[in-house]
Amino acid sequence: MEDTRFSSAIHMLILISEAEELMSSEKIAVSVGTNASHIRKIAGLFKKDDIIDSNQGSRGFSLKVNPKDLSMLRIYKAVNETDNIRLFEIHRNPNDECIVGRLIGPVLNEMHSGMVSKVEKEMSSTTLYDCIHSMRAKIQEGTQ
Amino acid sequence: MEDTRFSSAIHMLILISEAEELMSSEKIAVSVGTNASHIRKIAGLFKKDDIIDSNQGSRGFSLKVNPKDLSMLRIYKAVNETDNIRLFEIHRNPNDECIVGRLIGPVLNEMHSGMVSKVEKEMSSTTLYDCIHSMRAKIQEGTQ
Repeated sequence: MEDTRFSSAIHMLILISEAEELMSSEKIAVSVGTNASHIRKIAGLFKKDDIIDSNQGSRGFSLKVNPKDLSMLRIYKAVNETDNIRLFEIHRNPNDECIVGRLIGPVLNEMHSGMVSKVEKEMSSTTLYDCIHSMRAKIQEGTQ
Repeated sequence: MEDTRFSSAIHMLILISEAEELMSSEKIAVSVGTNASHIRKIAGLFKKDDIIDSNQGSRGFSLKVNPKDLSMLRIYKAVNETDNIRLFEIHRNPNDECIVGRLIGPVLNEMHSGMVSKVEKEMSSTTLYDCIHSMRAKIQEGTQ
């Protein structure tokens, strides 16, 4: 996993879900601390996966999925345009003439799959609502 | 997590543990499909963490830790010279004047920590021996 697109994307979805005013890509960009074209790029990926919609006749987005049903895994896959999470890369040129070189790929792929399935399980059981809930709790703490 | 150093490092440790002959950095490099200086770099990191030793008077390495006690987490941390696994990066310039911008960092850090602890648990319960065992099983399959 790399770069900050996933993190910016969650920020964006919390705004769309929680802000009282309609959030345009420009307004979202100001809060995320990036430019509007980066937000529009993420919005395009979310639209493609039916996660958000542009509001007709106005400049803003709305969620098409209940935050409780929107998992981190779905968000991650949408913004990274991938179905495969990679936790580490496997070296590409092991020597086939050595038995270890011949089998290291399958051995490491098997271990990698096991680790990815644990990460995916965790990411599919954590939802946008969990982030919103955690944020509300922090707001509550701050006002006490 | 990035690059193929972790994967090459596991290949290297399997060779050191299992090969009948003494494995020098040159011999390891041939099997891994890289150059000897890359292997020496990894060897230096393993030595620093007391995972391997250079054999006195000969050109080869030996394991200082039982493969059953050598976890993927320890190997990963040693070769990446870090105590912190990062699964995703958090955007650095959220806008403090927005309540979501102010709290997104703490919210995402908390979620990230939860995910990392699951990955670390998995990586600390998987050992070099598990890789060796899996490789032996594949060798067995191949000879049947």
